[in-house]
Amino acid sequence: MAKLRLFVEQSLAPGQSVSLTREQAHYLFGVMRLAEGAEILVFDGQNGEFAARIAEAGKRGGRLDIGARTRPLQAPPDLWLLFAPIKKARTDFIVEKAAEMGAARILPVQTEFTNSERIRRERLQAHAVEAAEQCGGTFIPEVCDLERLDRLLADWPAERRLMFCDEALVGARAALSGPPAPWAILIGPEGGFSGSERARLHAMEQAVAVSLGPRILRADTAVVAALALWQSLLGDW
Amino acid sequence: MAKLRLFVEQSLAPGQSVSLTREQAHYLFGVMRLAEGAEILVFDGQNGEFAARIAEAGKRGGRLDIGARTRPLQAPPDLWLLFAPIKKARTDFIVEKAAEMGAARILPVQTEFTNSERIRRERLQAHAVEAAEQCGGTFIPEVCDLERLDRLLADWPAERRLMFCDEALVGARAALSGPPAPWAILIGPEGGFSGSERARLHAMEQAVAVSLGPRILRADTAVVAALALWQSLLGDW
Repeated sequence: MAKLRLFVEQSLAPGQSVSLTREQAHYLFGVMRLAEGAEILVFDGQNGEFAARIAEAGKRGGRLDIGARTRPLQAPPDLWLLFAPIKKARTDFIVEKAAEMGAARILPVQTEFTNSERIRRERLQAHAVEAAEQCGGTFIPEVCDLERLDRLLADWPAERRLMFCDEALVGARAALSGPPAPWAILIGPEGGFSGSERARLHAMEQAVAVSLGPRILRADTAVVAALALWQSLLGDW
Repeated sequence: MAKLRLFVEQSLAPGQSVSLTREQAHYLFGVMRLAEGAEILVFDGQNGEFAARIAEAGKRGGRLDIGARTRPLQAPPDLWLLFAPIKKARTDFIVEKAAEMGAARILPVQTEFTNSERIRRERLQAHAVEAAEQCGGTFIPEVCDLERLDRLLADWPAERRLMFCDEALVGARAALSGPPAPWAILIGPEGGFSGSERARLHAMEQAVAVSLGPRILRADTAVVAALALWQSLLGDW
């Protein structure tokens, strides 16, 4: 059976001792019923994954002894995911999938047709952590605060290319090529981009419009499909 | 605002009249509050999409007058999706995504490590219908009954190629090429394939093992990612 994996905030190295938070203790000892001496895996998002042994197990806390490094950090490509938040469950899902698919940074954006005006950033960050814990990840993508798309684009880094998914388009996969570069993927809201947003995107030198096929995809589907396309052509697949 | 779209079982043509079921009447008149004279879009999965006018609206039924054809049938490529059912919500999700991404047929399979021993076929079929209604589809993939993988493979059509996702592999995208052919994608259960299943798949002449990158994906993520990869290389994207 696969060992339980836990993300910890503290920077890890062999021989260290790590104090558990109340939530971590509740999860390990209350929910998962682990006892002193049990072996788990821990990762910190920076130094890879380490073996760990439960040295103390209490109701409100506990302690891990960190052993050998079991895997190096496997950072994803320098890829951002920008998306317009939708209904809560599907927004949670988008963050989970972006973490699984190897986005390095997740940026919720407010477009002209975005319905949701606020997000719960910490809740979404927790979903990214859980996805990494469950899927063997060693890296946690940062979930940013909600930002207006027009402000983000006004200040867009010159060297970062931007793939946006345009429903009007067919067969632009060839545009996804070129030398290694930082990239971002932008998935619009359910109502699509506004006319001015679309015009602005098409005018950006860094931007590439890409089709995701002849069927209209929900935003959460489009996120996974776009990440798969990018990873297979330009990423680490 | 986009018009409401409804799937109907009856084969459609302009000038026809369609009787509504009790469920359809409840949805159109009770939930969506449409009245006589309102215009919607209907599709039958075979003849495309048609304009329709509500001719009678009742509590337990109603009638539509079918007008002009608004879009032809857009059938997906001849692609089957085989997957091992998982927890209920994620199984629902897989069917929804497969319909959106353009799978022609959806086959739940029981592998050696599949946890779920039964599915609710009609519920899953309803999810495929709803996905097509909401995403502008004109085709409904058939959801088949649960079948044992070993039986399916024993009787596998000679001409149908089979892409299966092998976690042990890296960089096999090149294998996805060749002349147009019927295809199937097989996504294994959360516990992976058994040793004998893996051996059998690797020995099949029609089978191609493909990597979905260095991160472990949940089964529902893998479904969307694999469909995106296939559609972009061999499908209708």
